[in-house]
Amino acid sequence: MSNTLGEMFRISTWGESHGDAIGVTVDGCPPRLPLDVADIQKELDRRRPGQSEISTQRKEGDQAEILSGVFEGLTLGTPILVSVWNRDARSRDYEHMRTTYRPSHADYTYDAKYGIRNWMGGGRASARETIGRVAAGAIAKKFLAAAFGVEIVGYVKQVWTINAQVDPDTVTQADVESNIVRCPDEDVAFQMIERIKEARKDGDSLGGVVECVARNVPPGLGEPVFDKLEADLAKSLLSMPACKGFEVGSGFAGTTMTGSTHNDPFYNDGGRIRTRTNYSGGIQGGISNGENIVIRGAFKPTATILQAQETVDNEGNTAVMKGRGRHDPCVLPRAVPIVESMMALVLADHALRHQGQTGITFE
Amino acid sequence: MSNTLGEMFRISTWGESHGDAIGVTVDGCPPRLPLDVADIQKELDRRRPGQSEISTQRKEGDQAEILSGVFEGLTLGTPILVSVWNRDARSRDYEHMRTTYRPSHADYTYDAKYGIRNWMGGGRASARETIGRVAAGAIAKKFLAAAFGVEIVGYVKQVWTINAQVDPDTVTQADVESNIVRCPDEDVAFQMIERIKEARKDGDSLGGVVECVARNVPPGLGEPVFDKLEADLAKSLLSMPACKGFEVGSGFAGTTMTGSTHNDPFYNDGGRIRTRTNYSGGIQGGISNGENIVIRGAFKPTATILQAQETVDNEGNTAVMKGRGRHDPCVLPRAVPIVESMMALVLADHALRHQGQTGITFE
Amino acid sequence: MSNTLGEMFRISTWGESHGDAIGVTVDGCPPRLPLDVADIQKELDRRRPGQSEISTQRKEGDQAEILSGVFEGLTLGTPILVSVWNRDARSRDYEHMRTTYRPSHADYTYDAKYGIRNWMGGGRASARETIGRVAAGAIAKKFLAAAFGVEIVGYVKQVWTINAQVDPDTVTQADVESNIVRCPDEDVAFQMIERIKEARKDGDSLGGVVECVARNVPPGLGEPVFDKLEADLAKSLLSMPACKGFEVGSGFAGTTMTGSTHNDPFYNDGGRIRTRTNYSGGIQGGISNGENIVIRGAFKPTATILQAQETVDNEGNTAVMKGRGRHDPCVLPRAVPIVESMMALVLADHALRHQGQTGITFE
Amino acid sequence: MSNTLGEMFRISTWGESHGDAIGVTVDGCPPRLPLDVADIQKELDRRRPGQSEISTQRKEGDQAEILSGVFEGLTLGTPILVSVWNRDARSRDYEHMRTTYRPSHADYTYDAKYGIRNWMGGGRASARETIGRVAAGAIAKKFLAAAFGVEIVGYVKQVWTINAQVDPDTVTQADVESNIVRCPDEDVAFQMIERIKEARKDGDSLGGVVECVARNVPPGLGEPVFDKLEADLAKSLLSMPACKGFEVGSGFAGTTMTGSTHNDPFYNDGGRIRTRTNYSGGIQGGISNGENIVIRGAFKPTATILQAQETVDNEGNTAVMKGRGRHDPCVLPRAVPIVESMMALVLADHALRHQGQTGITFE
Repeated sequence: MSNTLGEMFRISTWGESHGDAIGVTVDGCPPRLPLDVADIQKELDRRRPGQSEISTQRKEGDQAEILSGVFEGLTLGTPILVSVWNRDARSRDYEHMRTTYRPSHADYTYDAKYGIRNWMGGGRASARETIGRVAAGAIAKKFLAAAFGVEIVGYVKQVWTINAQVDPDTVTQADVESNIVRCPDEDVAFQMIERIKEARKDGDSLGGVVECVARNVPPGLGEPVFDKLEADLAKSLLSMPACKGFEVGSGFAGTTMTGSTHNDPFYNDGGRIRTRTNYSGGIQGGISNGENIVIRGAFKPTATILQAQETVDNEGNTAVMKGRGRHDPCVLPRAVPIVESMMALVLADHALRHQGQTGITFE
Repeated sequence: MSNTLGEMFRISTWGESHGDAIGVTVDGCPPRLPLDVADIQKELDRRRPGQSEISTQRKEGDQAEILSGVFEGLTLGTPILVSVWNRDARSRDYEHMRTTYRPSHADYTYDAKYGIRNWMGGGRASARETIGRVAAGAIAKKFLAAAFGVEIVGYVKQVWTINAQVDPDTVTQADVESNIVRCPDEDVAFQMIERIKEARKDGDSLGGVVECVARNVPPGLGEPVFDKLEADLAKSLLSMPACKGFEVGSGFAGTTMTGSTHNDPFYNDGGRIRTRTNYSGGIQGGISNGENIVIRGAFKPTATILQAQETVDNEGNTAVMKGRGRHDPCVLPRAVPIVESMMALVLADHALRHQGQTGITFE
Repeated sequence: MSNTLGEMFRISTWGESHGDAIGVTVDGCPPRLPLDVADIQKELDRRRPGQSEISTQRKEGDQAEILSGVFEGLTLGTPILVSVWNRDARSRDYEHMRTTYRPSHADYTYDAKYGIRNWMGGGRASARETIGRVAAGAIAKKFLAAAFGVEIVGYVKQVWTINAQVDPDTVTQADVESNIVRCPDEDVAFQMIERIKEARKDGDSLGGVVECVARNVPPGLGEPVFDKLEADLAKSLLSMPACKGFEVGSGFAGTTMTGSTHNDPFYNDGGRIRTRTNYSGGIQGGISNGENIVIRGAFKPTATILQAQETVDNEGNTAVMKGRGRHDPCVLPRAVPIVESMMALVLADHALRHQGQTGITFE
Repeated sequence: MSNTLGEMFRISTWGESHGDAIGVTVDGCPPRLPLDVADIQKELDRRRPGQSEISTQRKEGDQAEILSGVFEGLTLGTPILVSVWNRDARSRDYEHMRTTYRPSHADYTYDAKYGIRNWMGGGRASARETIGRVAAGAIAKKFLAAAFGVEIVGYVKQVWTINAQVDPDTVTQADVESNIVRCPDEDVAFQMIERIKEARKDGDSLGGVVECVARNVPPGLGEPVFDKLEADLAKSLLSMPACKGFEVGSGFAGTTMTGSTHNDPFYNDGGRIRTRTNYSGGIQGGISNGENIVIRGAFKPTATILQAQETVDNEGNTAVMKGRGRHDPCVLPRAVPIVESMMALVLADHALRHQGQTGITFE
């Protein structure tokens, strides 16, 4: 009952990493939106492994099929099922995971909760689960662009201790895609790539921060008091594998400012009410104010490393775990399209909710 | 439709800051839990204004009444309505807010969304809305303690740039309540208090960080993939007024570590599977692992300050806003019981969900 | 977690019959709807006991108060809390219910489920719980009338074996309110009243059928495949105390027709697509088609009777139950405003959902 | 957002009748339930067309595949995706439906709501949508049997004006499956079959009533006040295509009784509290009381008939519709496994909810 996100633009993901297929159902996408499988494939290609020398070398074709909800190139307003067949699942790579718990993975907690787990590749806890998110996110992006001209751009802001300078108001997806680490600050990107290669050589892994901006979001989105826009954005990011933190606008850094410097003054910009600064990150009182929405997610270093680690097996015996198989030393570049997708899904959902709650007037 | 939080332990808050009353309905609290209005009042007293020289001097008695759901000292399993009458609402203090938008407040966005707002004191965007959260949180705490022995302790970890050292494994509520800033690191608490007094003198405001720990949480709570425990915790904190960031376990700092140092090794502690470190913050794969759950929320400096600020009115005319009335220069001490409440509500909800999903077996 | 109805126009009722207060929260009512407590009181007065010689003689003033969500005569888009204080609760009348289960009441099942119950007057299973429904229904009616000109008229169609002839296309509320049994077929109404008086004399009770029509409902409301309009209407009626059956359009009688006579032919009525007959009851494929929506609810004879009945107590001992106190020999007249309310609540909810799902276009 | 049913045992159906595939996701099925695709196939075979001379002659193999959620023969507690490929879709049979509205079908209302529809075979409004329901229902049945020994038996109670006598306390599935009309009253079954053949010859169609009983349901299931067990059962049946009415226990007939005859006396049956009669239909106050739960659904005569009918096209022009293709003159026999499925799904959901709400105690 927990594999569903959103109230009106509602997605449900399904599939284990080493089951037959994996995918998503999107229920509530408005009717008559032009949609082609290529819209989805394009985003899946940004997410999939094996894209570059710094990501895992697993070859996952990840070809999307739309099995329902689209007719003659348009959405029907009915559930859209997107499915990807699982292939290239070398299950022999996972035999060592059958009984032994990988540190900082979900192996132990799944056993503790369900009393059973698909030990081949992590099951639902695998990063492959995000295929459904990205497929659904591609549809949400298309809807937001068609309805409001919304643009969503994510990028790697930090790897390990290496920080980039990026202007969220002007960065483009082309800037982001110009290098394999998806960091639009070119010099810093180079350092990041070198550091990731080094971590791979060490059999170690790195974390970092993804920042994401949404531009042209209309004012009014967000439903106080519990479904504030930032609350649903936070939830959506923290539901991603490996995410340990979230910020909107000034975030943790803003706590060191005083109110007189942190408050965003309003002014009238040719008839449109705007703010001179954007420490609020485009959201005030849980509702979008028309400024760019800027969020960040913190991703821990990948749990799977190729070094020996202390652990236990499912009978409590002390054991040693050493990762095998093909893994990402740093998930950040591949996390970018996922963060974008989560943001798109939350915004699409809130756009429909806002329309429902306030679109009928009677004056 | 958005004033409800939780699936099974479900709360709905209602009330404007300057309406007749304000409160909460708790639907789904298990039956036969001993509950007295004093359990709730005790927590409301920690939240209410006017407690000390560093918080607002408004006198809000905030007396709770339980109007339903409790019979002969026990919960009935039916909705529990807790109501607090609003008094001491000096609405003349708010006349200047009728048409002018306070910077970094919700005045403009509420108007943009609803086309109307209760301009007296912020309506639903006021911190008074959290009365319902704290009342419900008191019930959730009582349930968690009775069912599992869960202890939840929150405290001020940072004010402005002043940081405290606190051990989440050992800190007690008595430590926290030993000073008015609710920071259990005594020397640092003294500095925080001085800094807050200074900000008050300046008519300015400060932000900071609240940290909160839950101990004795059973393994298994959390519902992947979207209702992961950390995802719902993040949402609950970001739904609080002024919250701009969230962390669990190592949070943003963890992004600068490598996997080999960040991973938490498992070991067998006399039959109980435990981890040697707790960078995971008690949650792995979205599910509690039995270690202490540690979260942090970043709170921006209070938007209401007593300095003149540039803004516009609801017709777009340039205006100057200068806060009047009685306001907190720093919300952090009063945020502590609210953060605890949000954590308790999420844990109670997940305890019931987990019980429902896995409590029936057939082997 | 189950005292909430609706997705977007969402109501939550609370309160035991003999607790301090009883009421409802309405979350999701669109902003800027004119609303006065008199709009609500008017409907509560139609529901309350003691209205006439054929209903219970309990005097329940049932004065509504709006404690939140309305400001200067308009809804704010925030939760509307309506509360009614419980008075005139002669709890001595209920002492015999403390341990003995009333046949066909909820006493036993509440004990079986919750292990506790408020035995004074039925708690949540009392008909008093419907106060919240009627208060919320009054708001939904006002919204539907303001937004679409929707008219909802309910009436008693049958008492015991006595059937009325009523034309749902033309009946008015004035017709309904012209007699105390709320049956607009005057001769039949007279017979019904006599039969109810006879049942009262016998210490017995009667059941019957309420029919309800909604006119001017726009086409398009209803969300297949599970939230079809008739599905949500059925649920809303079956959630009422004593309801044992539901029909839309031709209902059970339609099962004896053939398709060639039951199908409703379409025709063009001056540009508007209409049907020549309305066996569909205004709903096709789960979606309103613009014709009048006609539903019926079957209500069993009131379980409380003043005759001795075989039963058991909460320890399983054989016992005799004889109802005391003041009870309705026939709930049908008072059920009319409740059925209208349920219909209004479902239609209001679906109006908002439809607006949300289809109100944004991009062509 | 409306293709989902259930809170904890939650199903989401997807797929158009003439899209690529059709199916269901089951989210929330407890872990470690033995489940094989044959469990599902067995029920789909009871639902599928072409089973007998009185149902449609379309050959739909309807082979189920489980694509996720099951591992080594056991459920994982993760979403179970069941998919059926659509074959034998002779779309030329549907060309006449492209622009012309079939009377009493959903063609017009889908256009009115969505502005688009898959005109090939009815899209989501097709009876093929129920494949997902039956597949999910098979899983729910397996769960209920394993957890509580619940037995669910449905049967045709009425076709047109022909009524059967069936004892819900003793009827078996073998009785039901002993003839092609699925009516366990053999003589009446014969009459029904003859009448259906006659209707087919006439190019006409018939409706009727399905009755369904659940035995061994534990007391305590059902969540007042809105998610009463009968309310969710009513919703689930009215969400089925062609359903126009619902009854539980005495239903509409009970309205003609008096309270003194309708009330079900309690007695102590060797330590178990039981009722002497069962007019309540196994549910009191919205909660199961341990007696057999008996419900009925009214199904209108199939809208598709092979006679010429008056209608309009999507531009409002008068038109004549004459059904072509292969259709059921009477859906009742195939509705039986669907009604059983809906009942199983509601009971499974309520079993989990009840467990969640009351399964943790603290005394």
